[in-house]
Amino acid sequence: MARIDGRRNDQLRDCKITTNFLHHAAGSAVIEHGKTRVLCAVSAVAGVPRWMKEQKVPGGWVTGEYQMLPASTSGRTSRDINRGRLNGRAQEIQRLIGRCMRAAVDLAKLDGYTLYIDCDVLDADGGTRCASINGAWVALNLAVNRLLAERKIAKNPICESIAAISVGIVDGTPMTDLCYHEDAAADVDMNVVMTGGGEFIELQGTAESGSFSRKQMLDLTALAESGITDILALQRDSLAG
Amino acid sequence: MARIDGRRNDQLRDCKITTNFLHHAAGSAVIEHGKTRVLCAVSAVAGVPRWMKEQKVPGGWVTGEYQMLPASTSGRTSRDINRGRLNGRAQEIQRLIGRCMRAAVDLAKLDGYTLYIDCDVLDADGGTRCASINGAWVALNLAVNRLLAERKIAKNPICESIAAISVGIVDGTPMTDLCYHEDAAADVDMNVVMTGGGEFIELQGTAESGSFSRKQMLDLTALAESGITDILALQRDSLAG
Amino acid sequence: MARIDGRRNDQLRDCKITTNFLHHAAGSAVIEHGKTRVLCAVSAVAGVPRWMKEQKVPGGWVTGEYQMLPASTSGRTSRDINRGRLNGRAQEIQRLIGRCMRAAVDLAKLDGYTLYIDCDVLDADGGTRCASINGAWVALNLAVNRLLAERKIAKNPICESIAAISVGIVDGTPMTDLCYHEDAAADVDMNVVMTGGGEFIELQGTAESGSFSRKQMLDLTALAESGITDILALQRDSLAG
Amino acid sequence: MARIDGRRNDQLRDCKITTNFLHHAAGSAVIEHGKTRVLCAVSAVAGVPRWMKEQKVPGGWVTGEYQMLPASTSGRTSRDINRGRLNGRAQEIQRLIGRCMRAAVDLAKLDGYTLYIDCDVLDADGGTRCASINGAWVALNLAVNRLLAERKIAKNPICESIAAISVGIVDGTPMTDLCYHEDAAADVDMNVVMTGGGEFIELQGTAESGSFSRKQMLDLTALAESGITDILALQRDSLAG
Amino acid sequence: MARIDGRRNDQLRDCKITTNFLHHAAGSAVIEHGKTRVLCAVSAVAGVPRWMKEQKVPGGWVTGEYQMLPASTSGRTSRDINRGRLNGRAQEIQRLIGRCMRAAVDLAKLDGYTLYIDCDVLDADGGTRCASINGAWVALNLAVNRLLAERKIAKNPICESIAAISVGIVDGTPMTDLCYHEDAAADVDMNVVMTGGGEFIELQGTAESGSFSRKQMLDLTALAESGITDILALQRDSLAG
Amino acid sequence: MARIDGRRNDQLRDCKITTNFLHHAAGSAVIEHGKTRVLCAVSAVAGVPRWMKEQKVPGGWVTGEYQMLPASTSGRTSRDINRGRLNGRAQEIQRLIGRCMRAAVDLAKLDGYTLYIDCDVLDADGGTRCASINGAWVALNLAVNRLLAERKIAKNPICESIAAISVGIVDGTPMTDLCYHEDAAADVDMNVVMTGGGEFIELQGTAESGSFSRKQMLDLTALAESGITDILALQRDSLAG
Repeated sequence: MARIDGRRNDQLRDCKITTNFLHHAAGSAVIEHGKTRVLCAVSAVAGVPRWMKEQKVPGGWVTGEYQMLPASTSGRTSRDINRGRLNGRAQEIQRLIGRCMRAAVDLAKLDGYTLYIDCDVLDADGGTRCASINGAWVALNLAVNRLLAERKIAKNPICESIAAISVGIVDGTPMTDLCYHEDAAADVDMNVVMTGGGEFIELQGTAESGSFSRKQMLDLTALAESGITDILALQRDSLAG
Repeated sequence: MARIDGRRNDQLRDCKITTNFLHHAAGSAVIEHGKTRVLCAVSAVAGVPRWMKEQKVPGGWVTGEYQMLPASTSGRTSRDINRGRLNGRAQEIQRLIGRCMRAAVDLAKLDGYTLYIDCDVLDADGGTRCASINGAWVALNLAVNRLLAERKIAKNPICESIAAISVGIVDGTPMTDLCYHEDAAADVDMNVVMTGGGEFIELQGTAESGSFSRKQMLDLTALAESGITDILALQRDSLAG
Repeated sequence: MARIDGRRNDQLRDCKITTNFLHHAAGSAVIEHGKTRVLCAVSAVAGVPRWMKEQKVPGGWVTGEYQMLPASTSGRTSRDINRGRLNGRAQEIQRLIGRCMRAAVDLAKLDGYTLYIDCDVLDADGGTRCASINGAWVALNLAVNRLLAERKIAKNPICESIAAISVGIVDGTPMTDLCYHEDAAADVDMNVVMTGGGEFIELQGTAESGSFSRKQMLDLTALAESGITDILALQRDSLAG
Repeated sequence: MARIDGRRNDQLRDCKITTNFLHHAAGSAVIEHGKTRVLCAVSAVAGVPRWMKEQKVPGGWVTGEYQMLPASTSGRTSRDINRGRLNGRAQEIQRLIGRCMRAAVDLAKLDGYTLYIDCDVLDADGGTRCASINGAWVALNLAVNRLLAERKIAKNPICESIAAISVGIVDGTPMTDLCYHEDAAADVDMNVVMTGGGEFIELQGTAESGSFSRKQMLDLTALAESGITDILALQRDSLAG
Repeated sequence: MARIDGRRNDQLRDCKITTNFLHHAAGSAVIEHGKTRVLCAVSAVAGVPRWMKEQKVPGGWVTGEYQMLPASTSGRTSRDINRGRLNGRAQEIQRLIGRCMRAAVDLAKLDGYTLYIDCDVLDADGGTRCASINGAWVALNLAVNRLLAERKIAKNPICESIAAISVGIVDGTPMTDLCYHEDAAADVDMNVVMTGGGEFIELQGTAESGSFSRKQMLDLTALAESGITDILALQRDSLAG
Repeated sequence: MARIDGRRNDQLRDCKITTNFLHHAAGSAVIEHGKTRVLCAVSAVAGVPRWMKEQKVPGGWVTGEYQMLPASTSGRTSRDINRGRLNGRAQEIQRLIGRCMRAAVDLAKLDGYTLYIDCDVLDADGGTRCASINGAWVALNLAVNRLLAERKIAKNPICESIAAISVGIVDGTPMTDLCYHEDAAADVDMNVVMTGGGEFIELQGTAESGSFSRKQMLDLTALAESGITDILALQRDSLAG
């Protein structure tokens, strides 16, 4: 079955990373996966969460926040602030972003700083959580480089490369990097986050309709591994550039 | 490495299901996995969410809510209502419960009713989200039976058996049905939801520390499959009783 | 006029108290008054409210929280958290619970601890605030015993037995321990809280329709005194058991 | 024992009622009990609460709201809006005001209108809830007169005179109409709401410290009856004036 | 074109200031501009905002709060607390009041105190924000006098007289001190705040419909200057009285 | 006195407008004034506010929303959603944006549509509210062109060109288009919004310290007129391009 945009089932959308998009952020990147575009920014703020202070945990902290700009979707998504609370999906995604970025960092080397990873979706066309993670990792590296250059931290705390991809089963066919229309039609949706060493950080598979077999699960993770390898290379290139 | 309570690594905690615990709920069950205990209640309310009305989607709806009672944890967990908003973890879990229960039901056969699945944790000792799903499925069956008996719905909408288990890697060893102390020490934590037919509904693996290999992922899912088979039998027994 | 369940007008519903229902709580009790059932749990948390610290008031504090589980009522009661604030009735009831439990305790002997009394209604069939107070007093004793055993506090701070009952006038007849249908039909509704010594802690009489005379007020308080004597005995038994 | 301001124990503070204080309100009154001063305003708004519409209850509705102006207390009381929710005490009081005013009105004769009773405390020196009720009843009469004159309602819905007084036991002595300092020192605090016919609408007695006997309860209600008789006369005078 | 109440276009409404309206406030004034009436109260609270403490800014602070009482308008305005947040207009106005009052005060001379300026609208008939500022300045002087008398502050911090007026263009005609009906019909609405020395503190002109020319802007500010001169005299008189 | 970046006092910062930045928005523009950068997006949503429906006002509506992205400032600005309510400054600014854009549009020609103007600050270096207005007007034109092309509206509703500039007095010198450091040091701050015809839409002058004379006010508005002329030309160019 042919994909909407003519891609092979194992083919990623065009992915582009623009680094240092913002003036003030310690590090920032705009990442595009096809028509999905996310602005990822890292700010370093002196201080750690209260529980760390109370429990005298040394080092620093990394946390994520995620929001979609209202005009990022056709049909406009109204701002959470107008309802007074974060929607459940955004909360779930920003918790994921925080966990993944903490997996990339040795917190003990961030002594005294909290790194805020802000992922704001400019354009949404599926896969915004994975795009956020991919861009966040680049922005995190840029921020860390700046903190090192400014001698705010002594050692590089980044201990892992991290990238993510969404894969899924549409009309019985496993495919990678789903766009919004594919995602909406998918029977199974899986978000995979892996390290540069090819191991899993997060694996979240959901049957939107019906269920999926062990075989399908293995096919999807294989697709994900392949896509993540490509994204890791793009991330490296963007930082080298 | 020996487990805290002397279990084998592939051994579930004692699991007990008490049905029809509540007077008013259409169906209810208290489920115990060791010292974890969750009250699962299903209420049938005439009416469907606004988006279904607006889009004229026929049938009914199933949704979940999850909360921990304050005294369910050592150290008391303060109520979300005192902060004015649901915490992120609870929101994530109740979204999961809702998805899983919808996977068990043919919504078209619930015409006009919303089934609320309320999971309130009485005692927390790890694995509350999986216990909630396991108890919720039993309560759902009881509620459906009542709705059929009261002729509120015409056909049985339940199309799948659903059960869940948490597995994880502690000190390098995969083990099943983690208690709180094991969960807190786990490097990898995985929640698996499967059908009676042995297929996946949800697969959520998270590396809390480090990462996990494909091999470990397969070991964990194998442990989960085995545990879920046992839980499915307990669920059936509780309904037959 | 005969009562729904055939009771005499001065007859309580069956009352049953199950102690130590929870694993983690310092003390807990499930209390049943007929089909009303409330889970009362007491947690001891080191620390006192800010105003005590600021005003350097020595000792500890006792406070109550009250919620109805959604499935405790026919028709499901939606959770306050979904509206972002506690409803007025719950707030009124939990303020009452806190006051009554503080009347039972010499706060000076709780040095440094706040006792949280959590009353969560499992099944609601009228009289949940009085049931909460009755169960809370039992749970409070259990908690205090544990704190003494663990040498967290030095002296027993409990200085009063406390019990409560709702009485009312239905179709012109004073009656005790109203169930939901009687409560809904009552012209006068009175909640009475008394000590083991037969004195009043709280007296809250409300004319739901019309007004009530001094004579009726005296009849109602006499009914209440009698019922409270019985409940005090049940509380003692549950603690002795 | 002598009272702060030299009053006899059964003597009310000076009470003064200024009618039609506001331009737009359907009826309004400023009531003073000594240094306590409350602005009571009644607005008539076409429409009834949703539950009345849904249950097709005919007639109208009466509801109360209560707030203290920040500068009404020494030490300034911050506005609830800055915390985003009504404090528990205010909620309890406004629920009481609403119940009392509904007891004064035949709702069936308010067809289609909701009367909002807004009680805003200008100066607080004890007894604000009773003052609110006393002023509200006057404002209610003024509002009803205007609605009748404007032919918005056909028949006078007011069916009862209502007045309230706080009494209490200070240093063992029952006394009436407590000012703030007496209220703060009281061992027992009782708010009594009665009709023109000398019957009870609400009776709320609370032991702030220790407990109170049946004899004390009777002494307090006798003091209250006497005070309420005087207040009812003042209310009538203010309306006749 | 004749004005509703027969005033000349450059004529203020009757303005009356009643000082020391409240018992507890450090200073208070009720100001009337025609049928608009605002209660302005100043409370002095020991302590300064957190940012001043953190940045070790010496001196004190002045801040404003503004609310309309529900019955101040025909049609009743519901309380913001029922929606859980301050409405945008009130927030804008109270920010303006705070800025203007800070312009009147040398904050360095308020060492350690925050002055809260509470402006609560009793009756609304247009121009409530300007009335609030005019009354607030009087209440501020009264509060400062009391603080000086009580030796809480050493030097008089008031460094400017401040008054405000609304002017506008209705049917092409510039006019001063608009009442509600004129304000609702105005094409241009301008609020002007000036010092006793005839200089501007705030100038806020808004075209509600169309736009306004430089010439019109100058006409409006000239009208405002004239009105403010009169109000400054009334303020002085009220303080001298 | 020389400006930080060497500009003449009447010289704008470099201003650049990038149109159609977003995929889904009906119209969008990123506007830069020096280091200030704002993303302005217009979404057209079928439907009008409730008050328009209730009052049967024909046509459509235009409204604005404004937020700063957290990383747009040095020091990171935390998201309002984490406090549960919009901050006062943002509310004030978005009300201004809405008013200005409504001044540009004949609402009667928007029948049935609400245009949401979302202004999200990417980088903040002073003047974000004026930049928002300038970019919003461009985005509004692009959106209208699309709505016309898609035949959703029949006639072009845009009736005015609108542009804005901030001017101020720093160290006694009037200057235009203040950057953040100039703004923070300014004694007087004025935001001016004008039409293509050289008339005022909004004029908001504030003395941050001291006051300003009529002469200074005229100098500032003259500077503003000149700057706005230039910006209007840039807006036209961006739409022609």
